[in-house]
Amino acid sequence: MKREAKDEEGPAMKAVPGGVTAARGFKASGVRCGLKEQGEDLALVFSEAPAAVAGMFTTNRFRAAAVQVSQERAGRGAAQAVVINSGNANACTGETGLRHAREMTEIAALLLGIKPELVLVCSTGVIGRPLPMDRVQDGIHAAVKALSAEGGGAAARAIMTTDTAPKEAAVEFEVGGKRVRLGGMAKGAGMIAPNLATMICVLTTDAAVPLDSLDLSLRWAVERSFNCITVDGDMSTNDTVLLLANGASGAPQVRDEKATRAFEAALEQVTSTLARALVADGEGATKLIEVRVQGTHDYETARKIAMRIANSPLVKTALFGQDPNWGRILAAAGGAGVEFDPRQVRLSLGRHEIVRGGEPTEADPEALRKALQPREVTIALTVGDGPHGATVWTCDLTYDYVRINAEYHT
Amino acid sequence: MKREAKDEEGPAMKAVPGGVTAARGFKASGVRCGLKEQGEDLALVFSEAPAAVAGMFTTNRFRAAAVQVSQERAGRGAAQAVVINSGNANACTGETGLRHAREMTEIAALLLGIKPELVLVCSTGVIGRPLPMDRVQDGIHAAVKALSAEGGGAAARAIMTTDTAPKEAAVEFEVGGKRVRLGGMAKGAGMIAPNLATMICVLTTDAAVPLDSLDLSLRWAVERSFNCITVDGDMSTNDTVLLLANGASGAPQVRDEKATRAFEAALEQVTSTLARALVADGEGATKLIEVRVQGTHDYETARKIAMRIANSPLVKTALFGQDPNWGRILAAAGGAGVEFDPRQVRLSLGRHEIVRGGEPTEADPEALRKALQPREVTIALTVGDGPHGATVWTCDLTYDYVRINAEYHT
Repeated sequence: MKREAKDEEGPAMKAVPGGVTAARGFKASGVRCGLKEQGEDLALVFSEAPAAVAGMFTTNRFRAAAVQVSQERAGRGAAQAVVINSGNANACTGETGLRHAREMTEIAALLLGIKPELVLVCSTGVIGRPLPMDRVQDGIHAAVKALSAEGGGAAARAIMTTDTAPKEAAVEFEVGGKRVRLGGMAKGAGMIAPNLATMICVLTTDAAVPLDSLDLSLRWAVERSFNCITVDGDMSTNDTVLLLANGASGAPQVRDEKATRAFEAALEQVTSTLARALVADGEGATKLIEVRVQGTHDYETARKIAMRIANSPLVKTALFGQDPNWGRILAAAGGAGVEFDPRQVRLSLGRHEIVRGGEPTEADPEALRKALQPREVTIALTVGDGPHGATVWTCDLTYDYVRINAEYHT
Repeated sequence: MKREAKDEEGPAMKAVPGGVTAARGFKASGVRCGLKEQGEDLALVFSEAPAAVAGMFTTNRFRAAAVQVSQERAGRGAAQAVVINSGNANACTGETGLRHAREMTEIAALLLGIKPELVLVCSTGVIGRPLPMDRVQDGIHAAVKALSAEGGGAAARAIMTTDTAPKEAAVEFEVGGKRVRLGGMAKGAGMIAPNLATMICVLTTDAAVPLDSLDLSLRWAVERSFNCITVDGDMSTNDTVLLLANGASGAPQVRDEKATRAFEAALEQVTSTLARALVADGEGATKLIEVRVQGTHDYETARKIAMRIANSPLVKTALFGQDPNWGRILAAAGGAGVEFDPRQVRLSLGRHEIVRGGEPTEADPEALRKALQPREVTIALTVGDGPHGATVWTCDLTYDYVRINAEYHT
């Protein structure tokens, strides 16, 4: 999908450094306030002017306090700052937790000289424990002081939990002949924190985007990026994706089809880069696995099959063992609950076709085993002659996944 | 559910030995024909008279050859024999595989002196390889010769793949004042075979049961037993459950409500005993985990939540690590895609209440850790004040699961 979108749009899009501060008019910082055992644990993202905002949030019935506060505020369409702490999810903390989340926004608003309603908040880390608000308050003070147009990297580090590396991406493209930038940072895909999964992503752009279209574009891009990755199929209480558009580029509003296409291509480029970085850094992962399903009559059917394969523990352990066990892939596909004709099925691992017409080919087992050695592996499955397809990403299931999740003690 | 059903029905039901040959008029055998590296690998179950039959089969799009043949024949409602091989699933084997499956029934029919249409067939083991029909033919010869009213144990051993022990159960109960028996054998819950999952269960009873009601009762019992267990959420190409009722007890037909209740209680007792044995013997499992969800307004909602918990790799690894990580259980429940009010939620591990009103209690962490040490652990979650509930069973996710599934090479 991504490649097609890129081909369609006209002016070149290029990667740029800077992450969440790549776009004009955004500052960020990351400081340590003592919530984690070490490293930065409080991040702030600030737009010099109020920005249009779109947000997507976990649908888990147990929504963390920060999610409840940010979801309500993002719904009003405007934001100017996002304050994020790691090390404590402030989830399952009742009324106290809600009060703490609101206090975080009030402290930041006071120091930034803006309305609390324009401040959003995210939390990630252990659940069921009250936030130590004295430390958080000190952290927000320090973060406001440290705000910088080069602060994207520090912010990306400060939102990490068990991530082994910060995740940033940014691109530059054109709208109406003017240069526009879109960047972002993310952390922790599915079950990254030992105690609870949290995926947080903050995206910023200096494009001017009408609110309706900002929201639609974000949903479209998230559907094709973060909703296409899976580490273990679980859903967090804290998952949040925010997109702030402040218009500081001076480019005309993203309104016509061409500009929208360019904007969505940029958005998808950044979100899918971050999404794949999350999976590649999944707990215990040794491989990034791309699952492409083609030949269906709609996107959703292809995605269902691809997600079933990507979530199969049998497929994920076989890939860890570098075993070209096509039977497990077909069994997972066949169990996805969608209709297709097994006799039309073709399956490739890397460049090797291994199943044709639902039956094994004469592919050389040694060549297949070699095809599974690289860190990135592609599974391509064709299930019919329909025009649609979907791509999802996952990682392998390893001893380290079990170790990280079984040996951690609450 | 099971306990309620047992309490309702009148005359006592008692466990008896004999498995698939506990009921009158059934014989069985298990012999070695060389499909597995060692041990018996061909089983035969035979009813002296044609029996009414009900069957349930995998809904996987890749149905093994034996499933295609048996599903069609069981649909006609009568059967007299079931021939089962282990060591080769005869799946993804195209027309050749279908021919082999039919040949197995023809050989058995010829030697037993019955019509091929009355013979059903099951296969389990590696996929994508043709059956060595010379060995299979010799095996069927030997199995017919070895048929015995005490052959249940040998048959249960002959259907094993990576199972570490045979699984049998049988009960005796009364219909119209006459003693009736129902027994069965099973193998391999979800992904037991290293190369492919297969769950096979053959049930036999000397009750006389009208075909419609036999089918309904089987569906009801499977929904509450085999469909309530999960090792890794995957679905096999070969899953098959068969129930043969030959009426040899001489008891009146199971028609009225009382008799139906007694019959279904017996059926559920046998199927849920076998189902739990399958989970307890799941690949690498060190624990049998019972997940009870209560307080919903229908069975299906409770089951969805329970299955989400039971399939969560995070919950399963935490239990392997004997860590009372309630956050993971709540996060899984909240992600089940059903509505409930988090503030009504209560969670217990064993006898300890750990969450009340959606927030942690003051439960002693040391006592909780001890509660997770036994081989059988119960998670009880109340999500509201509705009258319904569901119970499912799973096992923990361990290093050995990864080892068995990653180190096996096709």
